[in-house]
Amino acid sequence: MPLSKITVELTNAPKNKPDNDKLGFGKYFTDHMFILDYDAGKGWHDPRIVPYQPIALDPAAKVFHYGQTVFEGMKAYKTPENSILLFRPYKNLQRLNRSSARLSIPHIDEGLVIEALKQLILVDKDWIPDEQGTSLYIRPFVISTQPTLGVQPSEQYKFMIILSPVGSYYAEGINPVNIFVESEYVRAVTGGIGNAKTGGNYAAGLKAQQEATEKGYSQVLWLDGVHRKYIEEVGSMNVFFKVGDKVITPALNGSILDGVTRDSVIRLLKHWKIEVEERTISIDELVDAYRGGQLKEAFGTGTAAVISPIGELNWQGDKLTLNGGKTGELSARVYEFMTGLQRGLIEDPFGWIEKL
Amino acid sequence: MPLSKITVELTNAPKNKPDNDKLGFGKYFTDHMFILDYDAGKGWHDPRIVPYQPIALDPAAKVFHYGQTVFEGMKAYKTPENSILLFRPYKNLQRLNRSSARLSIPHIDEGLVIEALKQLILVDKDWIPDEQGTSLYIRPFVISTQPTLGVQPSEQYKFMIILSPVGSYYAEGINPVNIFVESEYVRAVTGGIGNAKTGGNYAAGLKAQQEATEKGYSQVLWLDGVHRKYIEEVGSMNVFFKVGDKVITPALNGSILDGVTRDSVIRLLKHWKIEVEERTISIDELVDAYRGGQLKEAFGTGTAAVISPIGELNWQGDKLTLNGGKTGELSARVYEFMTGLQRGLIEDPFGWIEKL
Ligand SMILES: Cc1ncc(COP(=O)(O)O)c(C=O)c1O
Ligand SMILES: Cc1ncc(COP(=O)(O)O)c(C=O)c1O
Repeated sequence: MPLSKITVELTNAPKNKPDNDKLGFGKYFTDHMFILDYDAGKGWHDPRIVPYQPIALDPAAKVFHYGQTVFEGMKAYKTPENSILLFRPYKNLQRLNRSSARLSIPHIDEGLVIEALKQLILVDKDWIPDEQGTSLYIRPFVISTQPTLGVQPSEQYKFMIILSPVGSYYAEGINPVNIFVESEYVRAVTGGIGNAKTGGNYAAGLKAQQEATEKGYSQVLWLDGVHRKYIEEVGSMNVFFKVGDKVITPALNGSILDGVTRDSVIRLLKHWKIEVEERTISIDELVDAYRGGQLKEAFGTGTAAVISPIGELNWQGDKLTLNGGKTGELSARVYEFMTGLQRGLIEDPFGWIEKL
Repeated sequence: MPLSKITVELTNAPKNKPDNDKLGFGKYFTDHMFILDYDAGKGWHDPRIVPYQPIALDPAAKVFHYGQTVFEGMKAYKTPENSILLFRPYKNLQRLNRSSARLSIPHIDEGLVIEALKQLILVDKDWIPDEQGTSLYIRPFVISTQPTLGVQPSEQYKFMIILSPVGSYYAEGINPVNIFVESEYVRAVTGGIGNAKTGGNYAAGLKAQQEATEKGYSQVLWLDGVHRKYIEEVGSMNVFFKVGDKVITPALNGSILDGVTRDSVIRLLKHWKIEVEERTISIDELVDAYRGGQLKEAFGTGTAAVISPIGELNWQGDKLTLNGGKTGELSARVYEFMTGLQRGLIEDPFGWIEKL
């Protein structure tokens, strides 16, 4: 069977679809999923779309013990004319393969995955919600399944795609979020796995996230693990600061994720002739800019929230209120453009939109 | 049902037991396993011993995406008189709970786990191999099973124990291993999860391990993530150096594992009136000691290998041959004592051995 021949088994028992206002993030899943198996010596094989169902794994499967996993997150949007749009899907699949390389997971053909993705979305297209702010979240992921306890790369894997109709990631919607600048815990360090989209990085962040939530903050802003002073990223977003007339964002340094939204926003700002600097930024520089009245706005970027304006940064008890705690002009403009583009409401000058 | 009431369902289809010389490490599993479930609001419930079997999980289960897992590793030994011995099992279960706290996983009653462990071992006692160097490896672990994609601690978990009859961890047995000192990749950093026994740390080490294997080395020796020069630990062992008449081992600094074997060896050496220093050691200090003829021996300590003498350290291409590449006198003495103690061949002056 050629690798690209995807078999399809449709469900006999379609589920009820949740109401748009109950969606939340990643709580409901569609009727089908995609699976592809890997065995050493055989390569990736048996691509198939099957009814969404539990997967049975040996309790010794490496994923349960040694965290050898990678994942991606992207979205499909329904336009008012009922077209289905994807946003830069190849960027995500290239990143999946970069993450896999870091985790010693075998490369997957990106063309096959795109094909699988499109077929799966078409099978479950009635699950794509169409209200403003909603979309179909796409979660491709790889797990290591070989049932042996040696600490070595697995010889067996499953690549899967599951789909979840989602509302806005943040309960607050486009309203600004408050962020806690983390000075105790570290998410990732140069030489580590911070630039791979793999479970360990998120596991490393849970405790800090939990403590920040208890203090009333939505997410944490990570500082670098070496000097403990350079800005890295937010929980699941890259971060941008408007200082004076310029926009500054941390450079890709190996310990933060190379966000697709980050890259898109940088290109969009340049397209708008707004100066963007990708460089090292210390928390002290930010605080100084704030005290000098130059820190005008800050926002996070990521597939889940698209753009998340930051209303307050808490740095060791000092509360830095940004733009009076309201969504800034630039944040709003970027949000409008990005979400408009993704939902097919405005023309795409970049060639980022892929129609199914 | 009281939490401590463990139900037992025996298998109808016992498996064939592997030959002693085919055991390897973590390749075969016994006929039964222990499971305990957790649901928020309900706590841990339904402790049960069931036939070893695959577990079915929703593809959205958090363990597949965000690496929220912890595990332990310990061994049961059969004495020549057919008694079954455990080595400091409470130390491992206390560490399990410390790892869990770091990963926002709920605490598990250590007494219940010990009881479960003992019952499970008794059910599968015919699986404990009895040749020199063999043992029954015990793998308790927790996985997060809530099927939602938000990056928050799970509200559902499974705690499980599986058992594997094992030979020696290293194909080389007690013969010295060659170790590659890693200067590119980093395993863990202060503020991170390095002192928790959780998948992400092992995932972070796979690539370096794989490259070291390709160069002919068994494992890597990690340096710290901040200065990239202080000795941390080996893949799955803590590390000791005999410099002159003293023994030096890296202090517990938050980024290395608090090894049960490490603690035992420190106490054993002190019992033998050998001076032990737990402190920061740079790779430069080691190389200087080597050049000055003072670096006499080095060995790793861990449950899997117990003691693993180091024959060679490769530091940026320089090959430091230790004790002529042979097992040193102290390494051998520690190995003999530890394995003798664990197999009940010598008297236990420390109260470490627990008889089932
Ligand atoms: C750690 C982290 N940083 C940044 C991002 C933003 O990346 P993207 O814009 O590709 O979604 C994400 C996730 O989506 C993330 O998990
Ligand atoms: C990273 C790491 N360091 C050290 C050790 C040694 O710890 P212990 O002596 O408790 O087995 C282990 C595992 O066993 C380990 O995985």
